[in-house]
Amino acid sequence: MEPSIITEVGAIKVKEGKSTPISDTVVLEYPFTLHINGEQYVTLVCSPQHLEEMVYGLLFSDNIIHGMEDVEDLSVVQDKGLARIQLRDHLDDRKKHRGRRVITSGCGKSTVFYNVEDLVTQRPIRSDVTVTPEVIQEIMKAFDKSSGIYFSTGGTHSCALCKEDAILFFASDIGRHNALDKCVGYLLKNAIEPDGCYVVSSGRLSSEMVYKCMRAGIGVVASRSATTKLAIEVADQVGMTLIGFVRGRRMNVYTHPERICLEGAVPEGSDEA
Amino acid sequence: MEPSIITEVGAIKVKEGKSTPISDTVVLEYPFTLHINGEQYVTLVCSPQHLEEMVYGLLFSDNIIHGMEDVEDLSVVQDKGLARIQLRDHLDDRKKHRGRRVITSGCGKSTVFYNVEDLVTQRPIRSDVTVTPEVIQEIMKAFDKSSGIYFSTGGTHSCALCKEDAILFFASDIGRHNALDKCVGYLLKNAIEPDGCYVVSSGRLSSEMVYKCMRAGIGVVASRSATTKLAIEVADQVGMTLIGFVRGRRMNVYTHPERICLEGAVPEGSDEA
Repeated sequence: MEPSIITEVGAIKVKEGKSTPISDTVVLEYPFTLHINGEQYVTLVCSPQHLEEMVYGLLFSDNIIHGMEDVEDLSVVQDKGLARIQLRDHLDDRKKHRGRRVITSGCGKSTVFYNVEDLVTQRPIRSDVTVTPEVIQEIMKAFDKSSGIYFSTGGTHSCALCKEDAILFFASDIGRHNALDKCVGYLLKNAIEPDGCYVVSSGRLSSEMVYKCMRAGIGVVASRSATTKLAIEVADQVGMTLIGFVRGRRMNVYTHPERICLEGAVPEGSDEA
Repeated sequence: MEPSIITEVGAIKVKEGKSTPISDTVVLEYPFTLHINGEQYVTLVCSPQHLEEMVYGLLFSDNIIHGMEDVEDLSVVQDKGLARIQLRDHLDDRKKHRGRRVITSGCGKSTVFYNVEDLVTQRPIRSDVTVTPEVIQEIMKAFDKSSGIYFSTGGTHSCALCKEDAILFFASDIGRHNALDKCVGYLLKNAIEPDGCYVVSSGRLSSEMVYKCMRAGIGVVASRSATTKLAIEVADQVGMTLIGFVRGRRMNVYTHPERICLEGAVPEGSDEA
């Protein structure tokens, strides 16, 4: 049986001003490293299902193999997140030309970390920004208006750098990481203090989105879309407030709700409980 | 003024069995290469807007710079898709440790081509698969049912390998390219002849999705989502049928409609006109 690609997490659901602790279903982000003939080839971030098929398909697309006959042996070590691929001898040269870096699930960047411990000690968020659910909802409304291109083409993601109740900068891109890079670049270019800022995105919040915001010193990240288990873990540990599914008058707060002016509830299992 | 990130293309809109030539808005896919101190660093695929901000944000996230003061000069040559970055001398070592590969807008892979001519001579699609709009619509219905995880979490994309009126293999993943790799791997692993097959996806059809399908010999690719200008150009030239926005009883056929059993219309400006 193929393993699951989803899991349950605790969150605070905010709906029309009322907060309720809930259990929410999120997807796993699974770092998966391929070793070819004993040498590290690439780390993908994927869903932990049909991994053998993915290895074959990827090696084929990358022109490492021309078919199954080029693979002498493939073993997937599911719990360690790695695959060992032995190619036929004559292919040894081909893979040498194609060493790769880490690739993430959405517009991969090379600076991915998968050791949460490293992160925490490295750069916890010090931001003391606070924001109310109402402001986030209003921002998301304005954001949706600015995202006209997204609606007309269905082809881009948007990201906005916000402060208090205003959007400072709005960027669209076919890649959600690119849109976030544009916001971070705007922050740098204009020497804006990150402490009072937060980020709103239309795209899924992966661990890499959290990483990029962390480096930029952003304390609150909210999205209209989902988040992943790994993004929640990292945000929790670095002290970032992660919010998903901001839609109409509701949203789910996954981590560090202390920056969101909520009434009553705290998430199950959180430090604040 | 920032340049546009969208453009118009000709397509055939199929709605309730009726075909009409339309002009449709699609997003651009813009390959953008960064050179640091004269050396190629990375090629991103992005939307051609706010490029300076993106360069700063990316270099910052990649730990190449710590702030604006680390950049001596940045010039973006928009029409050539490149940026020249001159870092302060003392940073020369840092970037040496971080050579990167091509990164695409969604779960980037390294095997990206940006010379369409190369592609055409290299491997045009020979598939003589044909399929009716009705079958694609029925497949998409079944596909949506299988995509339950997507609906419950909003966090995954799905991809299916299909033949005639059946789904042979269905894969979900947080990355749409991974889901496609899984389908291609299934095809290889089970020695399925690609000629009669087509692929259905929930995610945007980028040029890299087209490239992967081309390598696998898939003649028809359909998605519930949008496609990009570059994907359309590549599909057109390699002879692949590209279909977007399969929703309910409608869809847009962007290239090579000869594999889809349509009545009447042909796209404006296509070879068939």
